[in-house]
Amino acid sequence: MTRFSLNQWTTRHWPVPDLLAGCAAAGVAGVGLWREPVAEYGLPRTAELVRDHGLAVTSLCRGGFFHKPDALDDNRRAIEEAAALNAPVLCLVSGGLPDGSRDLDGARSRVADLLAELAPYAGEHGVQLALEPLHPMYCSDRCVVSTLAQALDLAAPFSPTQVGVMVDTYHLWWDPAVWDGIARAGAEGRIALFQVADWVTPLPEGVLTGRGMLGDGRIELRRFREAVDATGYTGPIEVEIFNDELWAMPGQAALNLSLSRYAQHVA
Amino acid sequence: MTRFSLNQWTTRHWPVPDLLAGCAAAGVAGVGLWREPVAEYGLPRTAELVRDHGLAVTSLCRGGFFHKPDALDDNRRAIEEAAALNAPVLCLVSGGLPDGSRDLDGARSRVADLLAELAPYAGEHGVQLALEPLHPMYCSDRCVVSTLAQALDLAAPFSPTQVGVMVDTYHLWWDPAVWDGIARAGAEGRIALFQVADWVTPLPEGVLTGRGMLGDGRIELRRFREAVDATGYTGPIEVEIFNDELWAMPGQAALNLSLSRYAQHVA
Repeated sequence: MTRFSLNQWTTRHWPVPDLLAGCAAAGVAGVGLWREPVAEYGLPRTAELVRDHGLAVTSLCRGGFFHKPDALDDNRRAIEEAAALNAPVLCLVSGGLPDGSRDLDGARSRVADLLAELAPYAGEHGVQLALEPLHPMYCSDRCVVSTLAQALDLAAPFSPTQVGVMVDTYHLWWDPAVWDGIARAGAEGRIALFQVADWVTPLPEGVLTGRGMLGDGRIELRRFREAVDATGYTGPIEVEIFNDELWAMPGQAALNLSLSRYAQHVA
Repeated sequence: MTRFSLNQWTTRHWPVPDLLAGCAAAGVAGVGLWREPVAEYGLPRTAELVRDHGLAVTSLCRGGFFHKPDALDDNRRAIEEAAALNAPVLCLVSGGLPDGSRDLDGARSRVADLLAELAPYAGEHGVQLALEPLHPMYCSDRCVVSTLAQALDLAAPFSPTQVGVMVDTYHLWWDPAVWDGIARAGAEGRIALFQVADWVTPLPEGVLTGRGMLGDGRIELRRFREAVDATGYTGPIEVEIFNDELWAMPGQAALNLSLSRYAQHVA
């Protein structure tokens, strides 16, 4: 179970100290943290508690949202926070179209431009930016990076130590080119992190909180894990599930369920 | 306005005779019809009324749903119905994963197999199958064909007179490869039909009825029309919008709105 990492948003309402204690007690080695709850609990305090529990922070979520005017400053802060938590990876969700805009090419160019600004800063801090392709249903409002191939093209100008890509089953499972994309990502040394969630329907209004518990949906999760592993990736596997029913469960129960489903459908 | 065609589902609750009379009165030359309301009104009666009004049926919607056990028979009937309506094109939505299945490759292979069965039958009836890539958010339950490139690969073994592709802005707008795909579709002579709808958020529960009226959303509709035209396509442009608000309007008002938005944002 050493590769299993619990992304904090899977147990969204679990307070930071309980989450960290719960993970340590369950033998979980890694956690993916989110900036907002970390800031709320206190960044230094979180970093210290993570150390005390002997846990690794596998990623910090998230930077990006480049369509916002203050994106550059905000992303520099996110990089600093990742470094302070000793997180090797900052998840980066590019952002969508600016308000009222239809200029998708322009938004995608802006991603390239801001990556160029941020990549060296990330490198200086020992943090790898994990550019995450999100499912195309988020293209207008959350992420104009929609496929793994596109993410790899955007990452190409930079050192893999500065810019990698996120491989998340939920966002990529439909893509006929995903297996080629994973092989390419591995060959280019850019798999920053592997995240798992399942695909279930019907999608809820707003399509944000309808991700499925592992095994409940339609994705060949183990095939994904094997494809990622086949490239030589040996890093953490983060369970990141946005799901209202899961959020209504006690944190410990949601973690236990994630662990058993991970063993059954991913490992 | 001669290229404008009203897809019947845009004015879903408008009875067939009113729809046809309304289109003729508005100077609309073409309509895209759906099998269910046509069957309800009567196929021969619909065909006759279309002729009486001097209208063209630009497409019949829809065949496909190959994950269903009776798909072959049902699609043969759909081809016959298209021929009876003098519709040059049968829209084909491939279908999703069979119940409980995670075998996406298998479902995609089945599309290839059933196309091979149906293409000659379509050819004999003078009907072109328009394989339609649907937005990836429909991959599990409605359509395992998710990109234009994939649709073209599936169409490749067949004569373009038998199997073409549908270019629908709503489904394809997010794809970084869509402009290459349109150029390729044109070069291969496979653009069976061009459909337009806009992309608006938030998506409603089930994500089926949230398409946007032209100009209300984020798609560069005119750029799409110009890209399709640049390949030499001179065929109809069908307005097909699934939208609860639009369906609540009187048919004539929805048609008038579609016409004026089409002139403003597409033509």
